[in-house]
Amino acid sequence: MTSNSDSYKKKNIAYFGSPGSFSHMATQVYFTDKPVSLNSQPTLEATFQAVEEGNATFGIVPWENSTTGSIGQTYDLLLESKLSIVGEVLLHIHHHLVGKMETMKEEKVVHCYSHPQAISQCDRFFKLHPWIIPKFTEDTATAAKEVAEKRDESNVAISSRLAAKIYNLTILREGIEDNQNNFTRFAIVSKKENNEGEKMSIAFSLTHIPGSLFQALRPFAEKGLNLTKIESRPAFGKTWEYIFFLDFEINKKQKNVKEALRELKEVTKFITLLGFYKKGNIYET
Amino acid sequence: MTSNSDSYKKKNIAYFGSPGSFSHMATQVYFTDKPVSLNSQPTLEATFQAVEEGNATFGIVPWENSTTGSIGQTYDLLLESKLSIVGEVLLHIHHHLVGKMETMKEEKVVHCYSHPQAISQCDRFFKLHPWIIPKFTEDTATAAKEVAEKRDESNVAISSRLAAKIYNLTILREGIEDNQNNFTRFAIVSKKENNEGEKMSIAFSLTHIPGSLFQALRPFAEKGLNLTKIESRPAFGKTWEYIFFLDFEINKKQKNVKEALRELKEVTKFITLLGFYKKGNIYET
Repeated sequence: MTSNSDSYKKKNIAYFGSPGSFSHMATQVYFTDKPVSLNSQPTLEATFQAVEEGNATFGIVPWENSTTGSIGQTYDLLLESKLSIVGEVLLHIHHHLVGKMETMKEEKVVHCYSHPQAISQCDRFFKLHPWIIPKFTEDTATAAKEVAEKRDESNVAISSRLAAKIYNLTILREGIEDNQNNFTRFAIVSKKENNEGEKMSIAFSLTHIPGSLFQALRPFAEKGLNLTKIESRPAFGKTWEYIFFLDFEINKKQKNVKEALRELKEVTKFITLLGFYKKGNIYET
Repeated sequence: MTSNSDSYKKKNIAYFGSPGSFSHMATQVYFTDKPVSLNSQPTLEATFQAVEEGNATFGIVPWENSTTGSIGQTYDLLLESKLSIVGEVLLHIHHHLVGKMETMKEEKVVHCYSHPQAISQCDRFFKLHPWIIPKFTEDTATAAKEVAEKRDESNVAISSRLAAKIYNLTILREGIEDNQNNFTRFAIVSKKENNEGEKMSIAFSLTHIPGSLFQALRPFAEKGLNLTKIESRPAFGKTWEYIFFLDFEINKKQKNVKEALRELKEVTKFITLLGFYKKGNIYET
């Protein structure tokens, strides 16, 4: 088994974002055996770098979100770095209203801190409480931190449950997001690749001619390998060239996979294995 | 011709974001004949709604970005609404440092306002000028507006060239973004669909069985229709079902397209035409 084995015990984990971020939450649900240390990283790039330079054994980064879409920079880093995807985890994203009040006294709230995206995802709440002034922060965890540092109870934040816990804030209103169907998928990356799992991610490029993608997908269709995600990223600005990112499930003999990849190689300009990993679970936040 | 015809003259255009946003710039380069009125919209949803309710003839929204990826919510709105894509336009995104100073006096800058994403995309600038404190705003255009409203020259913003022009600010440093290869593609939507162009966008769903996507792409390969973009969006949270979004070029007789779509229909659970439009140009910002 890849995600819950002993292999990562007493290891350093680098995650993207501040303490209390959703990547931090993803780290907690994925690495249930409590690793020795968790390192918060300011950027996606720094998270990859921490693992590449050996300062962390695993890195955890957001990969795609059901509302905002795939995270292009994560795809680019997966492609550029030599790290492998060794796991995935899905979070059902909720935005909570948190503050220093013991219970919610709506009329006393003056300012609400959060990242602009979180604030726009809670538009209905602001429409219903037009006197509350949004204040923007770098991320949702910083919003909780700033509210914790203020004396006045009139400041609240939109943040995760974990950020509320870290900064000792009360959850005043749960799940104030407009869209209840908001999920983020995270990738766990490491220097050492897995050699088993139920899912595989690859990237490849094709000559830009009609039918090239069709030919590339043929081996998967013929071997009964189920595609779970396909993404094309154009290399904008250059001549039109595309990198395709494919996730597929391995539900038959592994021999099929090797054959499919060998056949795919014949019709691609370049191909790389991004990772082999256990299918991820969904967790509430 | 679809984009520069007389048909949109004296029409209302709804665009996403504040005046000075990149969508606003996209509107200016796309609708060169000066429409009667431009309506700034606070959300992607509101932009679609303005067109649906007849308050605007055209809407313009960001669709995908080369760094951050496809904009999931735009895809969802394209699918849910009855509007058609009637055009596309690409902007080469640059972040400029703007302010009230006549020329850049680095040592005098104290605060730099912008959206958290723009600030993180200019990380190198902040590393080189560690005394400059980032301040977060709702969007880059609001950052320019806030700086314009302040008396003190020590405040600067990261914004577009257009926002600098609107708020009468000087461009102190051009293109301070770390990644010079940052492009955004915008969709122009309307109630009335085009019946000609060089590109077509469709969406469809398939049964989640191995080979279904391969079968769906067969008609395009056989008719020589070149795919330029493929995107799959899982309906997270439900049972695993996927919507595929496909863009392709029409370089042969249109009869081929009708045949390809008819054949595709036979293997899909649902299929919808999102739009038929002229291939977009790339503009500098």
